[in-house]
Amino acid sequence: MNPTELERILRELQSGDIGVNDVMERLRLLSFEDVGIARIDHHRTLRQGFPEVIWGEHKSCEQLEMIIGRMANGQQNVLATRIDAGKGEVLCASFPAGEYDPVGRTFVLKTQLIKATGRGTVLVICAGTSDLPVAREAATTARLFGNDVEELVDVGVAGIHRILSQSDALGRASVIIVVAGMEGALPSVVGGLVAVPVIAVPTSVGYGAAFGGVAALLGMLNSCASGVTVVNIDNGFGAACAAARINREHCA
Amino acid sequence: MNPTELERILRELQSGDIGVNDVMERLRLLSFEDVGIARIDHHRTLRQGFPEVIWGEHKSCEQLEMIIGRMANGQQNVLATRIDAGKGEVLCASFPAGEYDPVGRTFVLKTQLIKATGRGTVLVICAGTSDLPVAREAATTARLFGNDVEELVDVGVAGIHRILSQSDALGRASVIIVVAGMEGALPSVVGGLVAVPVIAVPTSVGYGAAFGGVAALLGMLNSCASGVTVVNIDNGFGAACAAARINREHCA
Amino acid sequence: MNPTELERILRELQSGDIGVNDVMERLRLLSFEDVGIARIDHHRTLRQGFPEVIWGEHKSCEQLEMIIGRMANGQQNVLATRIDAGKGEVLCASFPAGEYDPVGRTFVLKTQLIKATGRGTVLVICAGTSDLPVAREAATTARLFGNDVEELVDVGVAGIHRILSQSDALGRASVIIVVAGMEGALPSVVGGLVAVPVIAVPTSVGYGAAFGGVAALLGMLNSCASGVTVVNIDNGFGAACAAARINREHCA
Amino acid sequence: MNPTELERILRELQSGDIGVNDVMERLRLLSFEDVGIARIDHHRTLRQGFPEVIWGEHKSCEQLEMIIGRMANGQQNVLATRIDAGKGEVLCASFPAGEYDPVGRTFVLKTQLIKATGRGTVLVICAGTSDLPVAREAATTARLFGNDVEELVDVGVAGIHRILSQSDALGRASVIIVVAGMEGALPSVVGGLVAVPVIAVPTSVGYGAAFGGVAALLGMLNSCASGVTVVNIDNGFGAACAAARINREHCA
Amino acid sequence: MNPTELERILRELQSGDIGVNDVMERLRLLSFEDVGIARIDHHRTLRQGFPEVIWGEHKSCEQLEMIIGRMANGQQNVLATRIDAGKGEVLCASFPAGEYDPVGRTFVLKTQLIKATGRGTVLVICAGTSDLPVAREAATTARLFGNDVEELVDVGVAGIHRILSQSDALGRASVIIVVAGMEGALPSVVGGLVAVPVIAVPTSVGYGAAFGGVAALLGMLNSCASGVTVVNIDNGFGAACAAARINREHCA
Amino acid sequence: MNPTELERILRELQSGDIGVNDVMERLRLLSFEDVGIARIDHHRTLRQGFPEVIWGEHKSCEQLEMIIGRMANGQQNVLATRIDAGKGEVLCASFPAGEYDPVGRTFVLKTQLIKATGRGTVLVICAGTSDLPVAREAATTARLFGNDVEELVDVGVAGIHRILSQSDALGRASVIIVVAGMEGALPSVVGGLVAVPVIAVPTSVGYGAAFGGVAALLGMLNSCASGVTVVNIDNGFGAACAAARINREHCA
Amino acid sequence: MNPTELERILRELQSGDIGVNDVMERLRLLSFEDVGIARIDHHRTLRQGFPEVIWGEHKSCEQLEMIIGRMANGQQNVLATRIDAGKGEVLCASFPAGEYDPVGRTFVLKTQLIKATGRGTVLVICAGTSDLPVAREAATTARLFGNDVEELVDVGVAGIHRILSQSDALGRASVIIVVAGMEGALPSVVGGLVAVPVIAVPTSVGYGAAFGGVAALLGMLNSCASGVTVVNIDNGFGAACAAARINREHCA
Amino acid sequence: MNPTELERILRELQSGDIGVNDVMERLRLLSFEDVGIARIDHHRTLRQGFPEVIWGEHKSCEQLEMIIGRMANGQQNVLATRIDAGKGEVLCASFPAGEYDPVGRTFVLKTQLIKATGRGTVLVICAGTSDLPVAREAATTARLFGNDVEELVDVGVAGIHRILSQSDALGRASVIIVVAGMEGALPSVVGGLVAVPVIAVPTSVGYGAAFGGVAALLGMLNSCASGVTVVNIDNGFGAACAAARINREHCA
Repeated sequence: MNPTELERILRELQSGDIGVNDVMERLRLLSFEDVGIARIDHHRTLRQGFPEVIWGEHKSCEQLEMIIGRMANGQQNVLATRIDAGKGEVLCASFPAGEYDPVGRTFVLKTQLIKATGRGTVLVICAGTSDLPVAREAATTARLFGNDVEELVDVGVAGIHRILSQSDALGRASVIIVVAGMEGALPSVVGGLVAVPVIAVPTSVGYGAAFGGVAALLGMLNSCASGVTVVNIDNGFGAACAAARINREHCA
Repeated sequence: MNPTELERILRELQSGDIGVNDVMERLRLLSFEDVGIARIDHHRTLRQGFPEVIWGEHKSCEQLEMIIGRMANGQQNVLATRIDAGKGEVLCASFPAGEYDPVGRTFVLKTQLIKATGRGTVLVICAGTSDLPVAREAATTARLFGNDVEELVDVGVAGIHRILSQSDALGRASVIIVVAGMEGALPSVVGGLVAVPVIAVPTSVGYGAAFGGVAALLGMLNSCASGVTVVNIDNGFGAACAAARINREHCA
Repeated sequence: MNPTELERILRELQSGDIGVNDVMERLRLLSFEDVGIARIDHHRTLRQGFPEVIWGEHKSCEQLEMIIGRMANGQQNVLATRIDAGKGEVLCASFPAGEYDPVGRTFVLKTQLIKATGRGTVLVICAGTSDLPVAREAATTARLFGNDVEELVDVGVAGIHRILSQSDALGRASVIIVVAGMEGALPSVVGGLVAVPVIAVPTSVGYGAAFGGVAALLGMLNSCASGVTVVNIDNGFGAACAAARINREHCA
Repeated sequence: MNPTELERILRELQSGDIGVNDVMERLRLLSFEDVGIARIDHHRTLRQGFPEVIWGEHKSCEQLEMIIGRMANGQQNVLATRIDAGKGEVLCASFPAGEYDPVGRTFVLKTQLIKATGRGTVLVICAGTSDLPVAREAATTARLFGNDVEELVDVGVAGIHRILSQSDALGRASVIIVVAGMEGALPSVVGGLVAVPVIAVPTSVGYGAAFGGVAALLGMLNSCASGVTVVNIDNGFGAACAAARINREHCA
Repeated sequence: MNPTELERILRELQSGDIGVNDVMERLRLLSFEDVGIARIDHHRTLRQGFPEVIWGEHKSCEQLEMIIGRMANGQQNVLATRIDAGKGEVLCASFPAGEYDPVGRTFVLKTQLIKATGRGTVLVICAGTSDLPVAREAATTARLFGNDVEELVDVGVAGIHRILSQSDALGRASVIIVVAGMEGALPSVVGGLVAVPVIAVPTSVGYGAAFGGVAALLGMLNSCASGVTVVNIDNGFGAACAAARINREHCA
Repeated sequence: MNPTELERILRELQSGDIGVNDVMERLRLLSFEDVGIARIDHHRTLRQGFPEVIWGEHKSCEQLEMIIGRMANGQQNVLATRIDAGKGEVLCASFPAGEYDPVGRTFVLKTQLIKATGRGTVLVICAGTSDLPVAREAATTARLFGNDVEELVDVGVAGIHRILSQSDALGRASVIIVVAGMEGALPSVVGGLVAVPVIAVPTSVGYGAAFGGVAALLGMLNSCASGVTVVNIDNGFGAACAAARINREHCA
Repeated sequence: MNPTELERILRELQSGDIGVNDVMERLRLLSFEDVGIARIDHHRTLRQGFPEVIWGEHKSCEQLEMIIGRMANGQQNVLATRIDAGKGEVLCASFPAGEYDPVGRTFVLKTQLIKATGRGTVLVICAGTSDLPVAREAATTARLFGNDVEELVDVGVAGIHRILSQSDALGRASVIIVVAGMEGALPSVVGGLVAVPVIAVPTSVGYGAAFGGVAALLGMLNSCASGVTVVNIDNGFGAACAAARINREHCA
Repeated sequence: MNPTELERILRELQSGDIGVNDVMERLRLLSFEDVGIARIDHHRTLRQGFPEVIWGEHKSCEQLEMIIGRMANGQQNVLATRIDAGKGEVLCASFPAGEYDPVGRTFVLKTQLIKATGRGTVLVICAGTSDLPVAREAATTARLFGNDVEELVDVGVAGIHRILSQSDALGRASVIIVVAGMEGALPSVVGGLVAVPVIAVPTSVGYGAAFGGVAALLGMLNSCASGVTVVNIDNGFGAACAAARINREHCA
């Protein structure tokens, strides 16, 4: 809203064409400009069936049950991440319609049908089987955000033919998430093979000088393949959010 | 596919049971895979007028002149990054048609018209004036890769109204590059305001505990705004490559 | 001043050449200084109802009970920090007049009325709900040190309107403590909005490249908002002490 | 401004008591609520004779001359920090009324009289003579922000009597800035001697395991004296800003 | 080779100008390259009785039992590393023919006789008794890879005569693995005494500034004995793999 | 022993002045030059009643019992460090003559009287009560190595008068061990007050940016008091060994 | 040599069967057992034409000329590493028979013919052209140590077909040195393709989070290809020494 | 003791109830303590001919000339450390009686004869020739502090016989300073060979993962030889101060 428009509204009020309440409603959108952007975001969430997401790491079962219950009543899809097996069991008992994934440590409760609305397929690639929990968290999140998701597991660079033999899957994807621990080299190889966006996720898999994922993180930040971007260590959820931003049909 | 199987296929061709096209189709899957994908990439580069890019940091003027000359002869657009003022002067003398940007430290030599072919506008946001070189490198690169680019400078979070008053520019963008040094907080704010992809670029601006960009890098990797991705410190070029991957009209 | 000189002064006193006051003036400069300052500090503590504080982290229940008991007998208010739930239960049984706060992990035993004597309100702002334990420790400590305290929770920068809509609370404060984990960006935003002192407390909330609070700590040390000061990771207690120093009515 | 007040204004417009322009002027203050806070800050700056501050580190002489000239025309006091000797000479030639301090590396151009308006004296303590540049930057800045400043030099902890013999100066201060490199122990000693706010500034003085100020920074963050706060390495300017926030007469 | 050329070759085959073998030879160079090399590697594994190796760290007993069972059925030798005592007990019950080593934390199931086929002896030297688990993992792995192995324990540099009195063992070895924690100095001494390859393995033994093996790792990377190479912290398995690569009879 | 002396001995053998056994005894000292030095050390250990020391951290009760039993049979004093409460209980049951110290986590079994043979008193100073375990380990070790030991507890620099009031104890010491965590500033103060050797021991006491003792370690390495030396984090034992080396009556 | 043998020798002296000189010669070998091993090494050096190597980094032209002159007089081949262009010019003037390589920064002066005596070819692979100096240093060193050397340049993983198309060169090598900066991923790919020893050399090529080669170093230490070993950052010389140890014809 | 009590004591003296000695005894405990100790230290300095020491690193020639001149006038010996060649030339011109050592970068001006007063010889051992500057600084400092000094150069652990052949020098020393860069292993070997105090000095010699001396520092802190103490990187001066403290004839 620009000053011209504002002046027009105020003159309508002055002339009696509209009432004080009308102006206040419009100004509410104006004065909370930032809120407005966020609120539009909120509307989009409801409209597109995007789930509300809960970071379960530090929350008790009681807290999780309360939050999930309230959201489900609001007819929203719910995604809780970083749910360990114990909490998963409790949540499944409380919400029989929910699904717990012990690999990706996610709990999902769907109250709305999710329709894949993205521009194409999100491909989640996983270097080793130990990286699977992070990859699965990314895949589950991306699906709940309305994307078609395909998964490739155990295609690390020490056996380079494994990823090379997957050119079809690579060619189908509109955005690729590459999950790898240890030296984190896979995103460089994938980034050199494809022209679509590549999001690299370092994992804490490894020991010694892996430093809990730092080696993989640094490797990915220094990728010699141009245009690879990186998220935090073990942040499968964040990678999926980035992929969903990229894969949206209407970008602006 | 093992040698036995390959031999069987070739014998079928020899015997006329199958045709050359059948074999080629099968061999396409078998061989070239990597090469093929890379070559397609190469074709795309030529077809779309993408420039060849030279990392000028460690190259002498002689090396730069040789490489740029050869590329220009090949009717390619050329982008050289990390060109200091001294080298820039030399290159401008050697290639009068070229343009040197002392802020972004880039040298560009266009032999082909560049047409913006992306899905929308790439917005490059810059927290402080000291971050401008990195932002400019990103903007120049993105333009040469065929994107419309818009720039916002000096909208850091310590004066939060500066970015908030730019909702129009934020709303126009299909992908946003946010460049910031020091504490690197701006991508979190921007990421919370928009739904499009946000690429964060930490810069080495700062001193003391900024540790040459590490503080900004860590801040961005830990952004509380979901789906922000990060590239290496001062890597404006890489951010533009990522933006170009995202902004391509046809994604897969 | 050496022993010879001292002896000379004392002999002058003995002989009546100088008086007691002359000697005391000279000795005041010479002696006590450190002890005196500390003792005055001690007196101030008792006079203002400041609590004695116990760092409970490495202490056993027996040790805590002994120390708290002795202090309470001395008619002092007692604050014990870093008290886990198990120790809290034991202490509540031993000192029924005490209060345990499981969120802030503090145990408080008041034997004296606390009167807010500060210049204004200490505002404790908390970026996310996971940062609440540290914020609560700060709030409890500040109250026991004789300050009016106000709290704001979950106003992180990814939804920037949340803090912007709190301009009233920001305007009421005479000193602000900002508690944040992950990228630790909130103090920069707050520091840009207000003119009063801002104390930033990084928390260990986060994972991966948060490095147990290092990302937030570095972010805060590099804040682009001038005049933000920082305390140790998770050190809500220290932030409150700093706020109490600032908020004292008579400063020198 | 709350909704009630907004409604009142709009009704005055409706009733013709005020005009559209009046409302637009007021709404400008409303809709840019955040800006408002910053603008008030801006007004305060002009009113109190606070200088505009320029970080000179990465700026050329030409850029500095342009900015300083424009500010001086606006009748503002100007402070430029991190000005090396070469730039200082140039600026002194361009602005003969200015003063360059080669120790603190500051250039000051006063167009307005500065009146000390703080609650008390800002005491700047400096552990060793090598820390003097940072301490001087802090002192110069604090003075220009309207504070009485006192300085103590070379009172490091290896000769503990040096700081102990300064109890008078310590007792006079309303806020103390302690500047120290190497192990950074002085703020702990000072923090234990006084009850007023103590701001610690680590410096990059030292070698080897000093790691450019990291040892001093960590020492200060872990100070056993409660309520010591810390700013970035070598950030004398920031410490002075914090001291000025604390020392303001009217805190909220 | 491009598709045109490939088509030409195939048409020559079709027309009988060249034979199947000619095509296969050309395609061998063209295709498979990576796959082929990897496959040959796989053949070598089976042929030489090399074990398949399972990294047991993050695998459950069920997963381990499944994988080991399948491998054993395939008449392969099996090595599982990082097997704690609990898992070891379970595996011994499930596979009575297997052997669990609680020191080296390995589980071995031999279905094929292992014949030492290396060029000489692999000597595994261990600085202190606390480094023994890593040394034992290296020794067990090297033996299963078909090497004669000799072990020396507790010959750290603080009692330098201990390693000096072992010149016979040093002289017998064709490759030496040196395992050490704390300051990791032993490889430098050994590297100076012998002319054969020396592989250094830092261990996480130590405390404080040992930083979980970082001190030993850095010491080894900076060895003043030329030609010492290093593997990851605690990576006895990797050192043995490197030794086996070196000790192979036919090198190319 | 130089070649001349060797030749003389051999000529005495040749001439029959001495026998083969005489030469062998002398050569034993020569040929095992390094061993010899170590063995003399061993003899000194027995002669001076020095204990054998066992690092108990990674050893099981069974291992500890076996080693202690064998040593005690050899009429040696035994010191085991890093013995937790559980192991301590077991050892006390097995060796009723032994003493377990739960604070310093040491187990001592004396079979020989220890006589203080050092040049003077070893003073062990401890900044805070949380540093007591490390200080106690140092004190116990120093006593068993034949030194008179005096202890000072809780004299940290935040209350500087506490250490200043201890000038008598400081003046009595021939070597001082200073144990401190957090910012590790106490050794600088002590080093400035005394002329005798000062050994600084950083402890892992603290949280957040204490980084497990790194802050204290760096502080001590950068001490502005000349001639302070440092040992590893929490290494009370090592500090006592250094003190015992210094405090020996006959130095060379 | 054991005591029995020693006794036998002494008895022969006693009986006059051998003379004092004979015994002294033998004892020299005995008492300097360690020296002996080193001396054999020294003999090997002369015999095999191995060059003496000078680390030129911190040496002046005068020092270099003196050392090289003395060595050349001794008829030894000389290799000086880390010789910058300026020093190279001086050395070429002083020793016209010498060769300076500006890429690898080596100066070589051959006085003896070098014969390749290794088991096979040392292949030096270089990820990018910026890594060439380190690779060239390795190649030059390996050649001077008597190895056939082959070089591959610019085969980084972002264009994976580049290394895959080099299977012939990979197949010919008996040991492979892989030099890479940035993310250091190439050794993992190469290690997965070959069965011979692979020595990884991280380079300081890169910027930002490359941290002067740390990213590459960590990547290589965490290589998922088993049996890859690593040397220090930019240590092409050390890698060549390791390769020479491995490639020696007679291993023990 | 509070002022009231002090006044009472003084009045008793005035009235003759107690004598001057009684008051002095009480005041000794009360006052001076710190000052006194420091002053005694100062007296000792003058009495023993110890030099005043100037850290020349950040001082200009003018500052150095002024300070040295003033000290020399006071008939004190002067030691200036970290004096580069340019400053050394200037100082030699200004003070012809002074001596500049370009290796150790020290400038010494003796006005008083120095007499070796220590208990024995200080042995300074240097691992490599590149470590010589730090070793020389230590040797020069120790001599000026009144110690006999012996030096051993280039006895690093990669040729272990070099240090082993120096048992005579090792046996003569009453305290040993060991200077080493790279992996810093020499102090462990020396510490295992001798019973006297060993002070380890890490140097910044090395490259890559030497991290400017961090590798050597960590190696020394983790030395497996008990009782080795460590000073800051390149701190030859500090090691000599520690050695002088240890080597004093009268320790308390």
